[in-house]
Amino acid sequence: MTALPAGSARRPRPPRPGGALIAFEGGEGSGKSTQARLLAEALRAAGRQVLVTHEPGATWVGEGIRQLLLHHDEPLAARAEALLFAADRAQHVQTVLRPALAAGAVVLTDRYVDSSLAYQGGGRELTVGQVRALSRWATEDLRPDLTVLLDLPAGDGLARARGRGAADAMECESLAFHERVRAAFRALAGEDPDRYLVLDAARPATDIAAAVRARVERLLALRPDRPADQQGAGAGDVTDGAGAGDDAATDGGRPA
Amino acid sequence: MTALPAGSARRPRPPRPGGALIAFEGGEGSGKSTQARLLAEALRAAGRQVLVTHEPGATWVGEGIRQLLLHHDEPLAARAEALLFAADRAQHVQTVLRPALAAGAVVLTDRYVDSSLAYQGGGRELTVGQVRALSRWATEDLRPDLTVLLDLPAGDGLARARGRGAADAMECESLAFHERVRAAFRALAGEDPDRYLVLDAARPATDIAAAVRARVERLLALRPDRPADQQGAGAGDVTDGAGAGDDAATDGGRPA
Repeated sequence: MTALPAGSARRPRPPRPGGALIAFEGGEGSGKSTQARLLAEALRAAGRQVLVTHEPGATWVGEGIRQLLLHHDEPLAARAEALLFAADRAQHVQTVLRPALAAGAVVLTDRYVDSSLAYQGGGRELTVGQVRALSRWATEDLRPDLTVLLDLPAGDGLARARGRGAADAMECESLAFHERVRAAFRALAGEDPDRYLVLDAARPATDIAAAVRARVERLLALRPDRPADQQGAGAGDVTDGAGAGDDAATDGGRPA
Repeated sequence: MTALPAGSARRPRPPRPGGALIAFEGGEGSGKSTQARLLAEALRAAGRQVLVTHEPGATWVGEGIRQLLLHHDEPLAARAEALLFAADRAQHVQTVLRPALAAGAVVLTDRYVDSSLAYQGGGRELTVGQVRALSRWATEDLRPDLTVLLDLPAGDGLARARGRGAADAMECESLAFHERVRAAFRALAGEDPDRYLVLDAARPATDIAAAVRARVERLLALRPDRPADQQGAGAGDVTDGAGAGDDAATDGGRPA
């Protein structure tokens, strides 16, 4: 028995950061990046610090990993693939997500742990439990405050994705595979409904954006928009616009 | 608690292959690749199928990973680094080591799991237990039949490595780091003495090679040199030289 306890690192587990982490999940062509962008615009207009990022490939190392995943010249072992996604995620969490959250930002990520569970877990070789254990270790168990699942029949999403010319390795899998991925996402949302917002991705983008915004506003109303290390004694002093002046938000966590 | 049980894959755990796996471990400049080559020559002269390989970077995907590990433009998170080494190892085991072992070959690998335990485990951020759990999962618990540890004071090994012009990221670490690595290797050998041969790497290479050969001959005397799937009913029919005719041994597991 080989236990990989996420919380047993020699280094103490990082404190829960002050910002909020929101993941956008769903199949190909479900509109994740559009919705992340629309939410970012709304939050910035309200004076929030926002970071929009994505997996895989948001860091320099992660982009190298993404290239290996997309363009390998030999069949990739299932465990090697899962470990590469986990490595991308570990780098993303430590160098992009945690620093932004610690600075009080609202972080929107286009794909996160659930994409690994849905795409790599539950297949012929790996279980969801194995892939989840890897991701928990890679992220030191950093979980989203909210996951927005944009749900769409696999055939509709693939038609959209192909319409914009995208056809990477993932999109060349069979329709049956993508139906299993959809079912896996829905099952994850069903297990923890308080942390998920499941929306019909066939609805107009503006309707979806309004529903996302309403839910995120409820979430953020419970949280001050200041760095974690400024909270505590002076928490009652929060004023409108606090933090808006240092809106150093950037699109994409990739270094310039 | 996040358990990552190596043996719980949906796919049944691969059978123990018919060949033998021998790992060469030790610090920089300890002579691992020289000793692997000398042992391969001796085994081939005796009619054995032999594959000489190494970690990291023996596969196409692994070489991409090795390049990322050596030449990253941003600090690499400890977990990302450990996951990248594990991904290299998973690909190596599934596409190189297991097929060669199943064909009855003696596989000599220049570095394996112990290198990860010694270099990534026991540092500031990760425990040996965490890195071991990752490697066990990545390899589906494929362990060497014998590990040859070439032991040398860290300063002597580094002087040798620098003398031949090698100065990669690992070799730029401090002497104290390399002393900890040496101690970690020796501790691993001490935990399981039956599976280790610890040799003073300062001795002449021919003396070391003779000691390695003697130990490996004892190990192989217990094993027929035929593929696992031909063993069983006809095991009594093994004749001298069986398998020598199909000596398809190659140096390096890297595709041409």
